[in-house]
Amino acid sequence: MELRLTSEEIIKLKEGENIYSAMKRSGIYLVAPCGGKGTCGKCKVMVIDGGHEVISYGRLTSKERESNIVLACQTIPRGDLLIEIPKESRLVVGDKIAIANTKDIVNYLRSFGVEINPLVKRVTIELPPPTISDSISDLERLKRALDEKGLGMMRFSHLVISKMADVMRHGNWNVELDYIPCDDASNEAVFLSSRETCSRKYGLAVDIGTTTVVVYLVNLVSGEVVDVGSTYNSQMRYGDDVITRIVHATEGGGLNELREAVVSDINTIADSIMDRHGIEPCEVITASVAANTTMSQLFWGLDPAAIREEPYIPTLNSYPLWHGGTAKLSINEQSPVYTVPCVASYVGGDIVAGVLASKVHRNSEIALFMDIGTNGEIAIGNNEWLMTAACSMGPCFEGSGIRCGMRATPGAIESVKIDPDTLEPQIGVIGGGHPMGICGSGMIDAISEMFFSGIIDQKGKFVRGKTDRIMEGEEGLEYVIYKDEAYHKNIVLTEVDMENIVRAKAALYAGITTLLNEAGFTIDMVEKVYIAGGFGNYINVEKAIIMGMLPDIPRERFVYMGNTSITGAYLCLMSEDLRKEAEDIASKMTYVELSVSRGFMDEYMSAMFLPHTDMSQFPTVTGRVF
Amino acid sequence: MELRLTSEEIIKLKEGENIYSAMKRSGIYLVAPCGGKGTCGKCKVMVIDGGHEVISYGRLTSKERESNIVLACQTIPRGDLLIEIPKESRLVVGDKIAIANTKDIVNYLRSFGVEINPLVKRVTIELPPPTISDSISDLERLKRALDEKGLGMMRFSHLVISKMADVMRHGNWNVELDYIPCDDASNEAVFLSSRETCSRKYGLAVDIGTTTVVVYLVNLVSGEVVDVGSTYNSQMRYGDDVITRIVHATEGGGLNELREAVVSDINTIADSIMDRHGIEPCEVITASVAANTTMSQLFWGLDPAAIREEPYIPTLNSYPLWHGGTAKLSINEQSPVYTVPCVASYVGGDIVAGVLASKVHRNSEIALFMDIGTNGEIAIGNNEWLMTAACSMGPCFEGSGIRCGMRATPGAIESVKIDPDTLEPQIGVIGGGHPMGICGSGMIDAISEMFFSGIIDQKGKFVRGKTDRIMEGEEGLEYVIYKDEAYHKNIVLTEVDMENIVRAKAALYAGITTLLNEAGFTIDMVEKVYIAGGFGNYINVEKAIIMGMLPDIPRERFVYMGNTSITGAYLCLMSEDLRKEAEDIASKMTYVELSVSRGFMDEYMSAMFLPHTDMSQFPTVTGRVF
Repeated sequence: MELRLTSEEIIKLKEGENIYSAMKRSGIYLVAPCGGKGTCGKCKVMVIDGGHEVISYGRLTSKERESNIVLACQTIPRGDLLIEIPKESRLVVGDKIAIANTKDIVNYLRSFGVEINPLVKRVTIELPPPTISDSISDLERLKRALDEKGLGMMRFSHLVISKMADVMRHGNWNVELDYIPCDDASNEAVFLSSRETCSRKYGLAVDIGTTTVVVYLVNLVSGEVVDVGSTYNSQMRYGDDVITRIVHATEGGGLNELREAVVSDINTIADSIMDRHGIEPCEVITASVAANTTMSQLFWGLDPAAIREEPYIPTLNSYPLWHGGTAKLSINEQSPVYTVPCVASYVGGDIVAGVLASKVHRNSEIALFMDIGTNGEIAIGNNEWLMTAACSMGPCFEGSGIRCGMRATPGAIESVKIDPDTLEPQIGVIGGGHPMGICGSGMIDAISEMFFSGIIDQKGKFVRGKTDRIMEGEEGLEYVIYKDEAYHKNIVLTEVDMENIVRAKAALYAGITTLLNEAGFTIDMVEKVYIAGGFGNYINVEKAIIMGMLPDIPRERFVYMGNTSITGAYLCLMSEDLRKEAEDIASKMTYVELSVSRGFMDEYMSAMFLPHTDMSQFPTVTGRVF
Repeated sequence: MELRLTSEEIIKLKEGENIYSAMKRSGIYLVAPCGGKGTCGKCKVMVIDGGHEVISYGRLTSKERESNIVLACQTIPRGDLLIEIPKESRLVVGDKIAIANTKDIVNYLRSFGVEINPLVKRVTIELPPPTISDSISDLERLKRALDEKGLGMMRFSHLVISKMADVMRHGNWNVELDYIPCDDASNEAVFLSSRETCSRKYGLAVDIGTTTVVVYLVNLVSGEVVDVGSTYNSQMRYGDDVITRIVHATEGGGLNELREAVVSDINTIADSIMDRHGIEPCEVITASVAANTTMSQLFWGLDPAAIREEPYIPTLNSYPLWHGGTAKLSINEQSPVYTVPCVASYVGGDIVAGVLASKVHRNSEIALFMDIGTNGEIAIGNNEWLMTAACSMGPCFEGSGIRCGMRATPGAIESVKIDPDTLEPQIGVIGGGHPMGICGSGMIDAISEMFFSGIIDQKGKFVRGKTDRIMEGEEGLEYVIYKDEAYHKNIVLTEVDMENIVRAKAALYAGITTLLNEAGFTIDMVEKVYIAGGFGNYINVEKAIIMGMLPDIPRERFVYMGNTSITGAYLCLMSEDLRKEAEDIASKMTYVELSVSRGFMDEYMSAMFLPHTDMSQFPTVTGRVF
């Protein structure tokens, strides 16, 4: 039984296996943020020929069903099958768009004025071969040579020693030792290699988001990013947000499943990059991981149960250096893996990485940092103090939980303009060409434009009959941003989508105002606003203010930073000084628990309008609408 | 298909499996130093009823064959089978005889005048439960409490942290932390437990001999030995001596097989002891292992190839503290495992343990220490200097390679007297009763008695017709020490046995004289001779001198120490001071490589007679024979 693709790939089928699983097993990945549960409705394929059984059509439209579109994860071949995979269903690991952003990263690293100083140092050693009269053991021989180089205090693991005899002899007694230089003079050997092999030095910078995973493979000598890749976090199949995953880990006994899911995501990307560039796993000798607190614990296989229960306690915030092998990464198993330190259960290493990357902690001006992902985390402060809080936004700006939502990858609608007269939209697509969905920045544009043009009201509800692009869809009213008969797929925003987006923006805005109150500041005292998040190439600040997501302050104070979690992970990978700054940031930050803050719920309810119940907070918006 | 034993045990059989394997799988162990290859001829069973196929009869006598005796490892059941296992074929794990020796061990430990101080210390901690206002992470909470106890610098492994959240909450914030106190102020956490569980502290002392493995389970608080066990080293199936095992590890790719064989031997004993005494694996929190250099490397899975090739280099002599989990021991996986340091490729931790146990390094008198096992290792020196050498003796004194040889366990003939007139022998059996074989001390007795009474000549050959106990056996002439018609088994020493024993004693004696020469001493300057080895409860020094195995010096200078390797492992388990003394001994010892020493071969050839070619070296023997 075979599954044939119009792209001419052929997959041997196993009895009872669905199309999604069969393709995944063969290394062909489909977009499926739900992980193949049939709920996200993104893994669409078109059946050209052959018997098959459809378990569920999920959220497919009747038009799509008529055109033989099925969900790969809900369709089981019953004999040979020929299918076509629409471009938008294929998951591209290694978005080209992210590569563009990394070209300047070496310059950005230099702007910090620190030395390139990865976790691992390398020393080259020429050993005198043993003789009957100089017959000390291999380890003593190595230690003697290290002593001469001032590296006398060196701890050796079982793994390093177990390969020592072979490496020394194969390398003809010329070896290279990678080690972690430690403050307390007791260095730790991590990898011994013969000089012929493994002579290059690479590292991984990893951002584990609740929704997406991003990996940079970095040349540790130059700091250049060799290649990048990203994918949905496969933990999505166990739940969209951290809470449902904690429940799965604890009550469902799924800790290992969750751990393996995300580690396998990272390994899939890393393996394909290493393969593409001819880099051996042993050459990737260190890694740096930034993630929120729950993702950090799941990555290391630590039960996150207590994170969810009052008083919300993580197992640890400041991680020791553990090994790639312990993490089950497919790089050098002896590599030290740095975990960017966390602050509290809901402010993690991703935020510390973001504050580091945006230099809030280095400047005297009062700055607001916010990371807009599945959680919205906010930090405020300067080089003297830092406060932080977190609010749950849901994954909508990352493209999940939105009918036509997608990540900010090629094919995503990233900007929308609506003609005030014709009410017809004009769209901008990442990478140009045919749009496949809409990403976070596109949603922000679309909502503020719809609000301005009266297509939606202050509550985010569609005004029926305002334009014929407001149509009755299968989930209620929806607005058609892009009509596409050929692909049987309109790109729309539904009323359910709108509710999700309004809730998300309200949570963020309420978080900002509550934290400012706690800090004793007003919004106009904020001199800089750094915005991070994976929701687009850019954010149209004007439009985010119009919808009441960002505070109404002078536009020039806003700086869009992109994914600061991966940037911070990269900075920590490359510099000892910056790792120390990250530790400083984490220990300095005062965490405010919004769930016990009296003001937060009021602020949230007030922010459930566009832009806000209290229009005086949005002076530049007032008078431009209605 | 079933295998039934007359002892009423019933084993389900797998198709094609031999009796030995089927029984082993069911936890019934037979004596089989060859590990089931059919070469040692010890795993005899009697077939009472049922179809079976005999692959080989090996060394079974025709009388045995006629009585339906087969080798279990060479016999495959072809249907239901009823067999009887002779008492001497059953391997008793946990020899009672060894227990007797351990009763005084706490007093012996006290005689060193050191504190009881195992590798692991325990601290009890009452943590304040977390609250919203005291919401630091679990690890920070623990570190804060440790800081108050002056234990601020503590390293935590992934394993300890991965269980931390659960242990703290289950223990209601009352926990106990086991840690390794380190000199450089950086302590290492090894095990966190709630106070309700795992409150007792035990440790393992292990002696890994080339032929036998001995394990003590020790109460770390009192120092008492809870129980002991021993077994043949299952590596025997890959070769009798270290060289053939190194070849198997290197050329046969059998490193893991060898590692798993010996680790499984230790675990089988430890598991059965823990089970017998209701001790949980988590309560066994440390271990100490003494073994020769090759056995140490194999135990840790380190390729021993270079040990065998000139210039004979071990990977390491002084082992870091690795974990029980790394060693794959079935005790607490976080337990630190101490490896008694080795000196050179052929003088290992067993000898360092022996020197430690016999206190050679503490006294000013010139002492000779020798460990008679598969290898004979010799050390000479005092509290100022130490020299050492090794010679290959073969496993005969441990009961292997000798037709009726066995270890010094109940049923072994341990003493032999031959009436000079009747030439009839009188035997002493360990534990009394029916003899099952002969152990090392019995062999020494027998040979010197046979030599004295003219049954053998100076070359160790039988004098045909001297007595009717000299019979024509299947391997040439043999002397019947014990006649047993009922069990179809005479206990004999064959001419091949004699050759093995003479070669062994010659190697040892030549080693002693060569090392003395190298040190510039003569035999009469030796003030003390400590004899170690597993060949019996005692050694009859007089008779060992008569056969030329030990030097002819005043008898009161000899002290029989038993198994000093396990004693030294025990001492290192219990005391930090003694671990330091062991390190001192190892670093102080000058190793003499006999294979490149000019005198050794001459000495060896001269020692191939009883007692010696140069009778002037044996003044007290001359005149008493012939």
